[in-house]
Amino acid sequence: MKYLLNISYDGTNYHGWQVQPGCSTIQGSLQDACERIFTSRPAVTGCSRTDSGVHAFNFYCTAEGVTSVPVDKLATALNTLLPDDITVKSVRVVDDSFHPRYSCNGKEYMYDICLSEHREPLTSRYSWQLCRELDVNRMERASESFVGKHDFSAFCASGSSVVDTVRTVFELRIEKSDKHLHIYVSADGFLYNMVRIIVGTLVDVGLHRDTMTIKEILDSKDRNNAGRTAPANGLFLNRVFYGSEHH
Amino acid sequence: MKYLLNISYDGTNYHGWQVQPGCSTIQGSLQDACERIFTSRPAVTGCSRTDSGVHAFNFYCTAEGVTSVPVDKLATALNTLLPDDITVKSVRVVDDSFHPRYSCNGKEYMYDICLSEHREPLTSRYSWQLCRELDVNRMERASESFVGKHDFSAFCASGSSVVDTVRTVFELRIEKSDKHLHIYVSADGFLYNMVRIIVGTLVDVGLHRDTMTIKEILDSKDRNNAGRTAPANGLFLNRVFYGSEHH
Repeated sequence: MKYLLNISYDGTNYHGWQVQPGCSTIQGSLQDACERIFTSRPAVTGCSRTDSGVHAFNFYCTAEGVTSVPVDKLATALNTLLPDDITVKSVRVVDDSFHPRYSCNGKEYMYDICLSEHREPLTSRYSWQLCRELDVNRMERASESFVGKHDFSAFCASGSSVVDTVRTVFELRIEKSDKHLHIYVSADGFLYNMVRIIVGTLVDVGLHRDTMTIKEILDSKDRNNAGRTAPANGLFLNRVFYGSEHH
Repeated sequence: MKYLLNISYDGTNYHGWQVQPGCSTIQGSLQDACERIFTSRPAVTGCSRTDSGVHAFNFYCTAEGVTSVPVDKLATALNTLLPDDITVKSVRVVDDSFHPRYSCNGKEYMYDICLSEHREPLTSRYSWQLCRELDVNRMERASESFVGKHDFSAFCASGSSVVDTVRTVFELRIEKSDKHLHIYVSADGFLYNMVRIIVGTLVDVGLHRDTMTIKEILDSKDRNNAGRTAPANGLFLNRVFYGSEHH
């Protein structure tokens, strides 16, 4: 049986999604929990490999195996076995052909930046404590150049082995609420560190520190022309799009 | 010189405000930081004694002493010396007669309850993960009985040595946002654990588990008739009222 799990987690204490020897990972924690109620350690496959320290409001993974726990009780059963910083929100049975990564049509990430003059202790776990004012109108104008189909090589961490670096950004939306900026980026796929480099580049624009337009940076296909990589702790996987539904 | 500090903190890792031997406290951390830029260890006096695990968006304390750091640079200077979970938001000079507790006309606390079916990893540090549905309309009707001048003995932790147990609640407001309930309580003063017992009692009302009305519980002056004490991690000191100003 193939189960699709919708999970949420606080990534602070994990070395990202993917199992690595000797490290706490989300995938490893889920396999451990599943193993206790499945007949054997199940294969757990995720919709993406989130980095160390990145959070998820909604992440999807499949777990394949046999269990006597009815599907409508699986979330509660797994939550009693999982650490407090990972929660299974829901579980449903999917077709064997379903793959959490390949069946997905896109994802939306949210990035949180704190603009307060001094760092905020009550949000510092979940946002980039930039503690500077940003020219948001200027960032919004610049962000339009990301939307559409582009080669995002300049916005991919160096060392990535991905061959096809063309992605389509559906939307880039900046919302200001009190002293926080929320940057939403949805796309059909993301290169390694793509959202964090986009955010770092937009912050340079907001600080009037940019020397090239976004279009020029994209055209250059050179990572050195984009901004710094924004810290992991402000990044959240927010939504994953499957089929005609938006999850 | 007497300085008034507006601070914010994440109380998770502290044994509350007040200095206790062998424990990490907010007051102790502030004294340590001040000592490094004042000519001697200053007296630091708070506006209230928040409990272990309680947070503050806005807490006020005075620090008395002599420092060569100009007042407009004090917040930044102290923030470089404080741990990440305590921040000084602003500092100003106040009159010698000012006392952060006795000069205060009232305070507002906020309590956060999570109603999601499963616990939320991204809010569990800052809210009571009740994970039950509540009858909010019923809670709102019941909450009206708290407003006004009452003897709150029934809503005071047993063992408290306070003599005058009469307090005036200015407002009790319940706001629902998505899967969270925010309960705001403002009053001229609070008894020990008063907000947390009010919240625990209102939750019983929301679960249709109450056997007495709020008025009956107040009139009984018996702690045993009120609900359980809600967990500390959902409670925030939100505002402190001084003079004619609201801080």
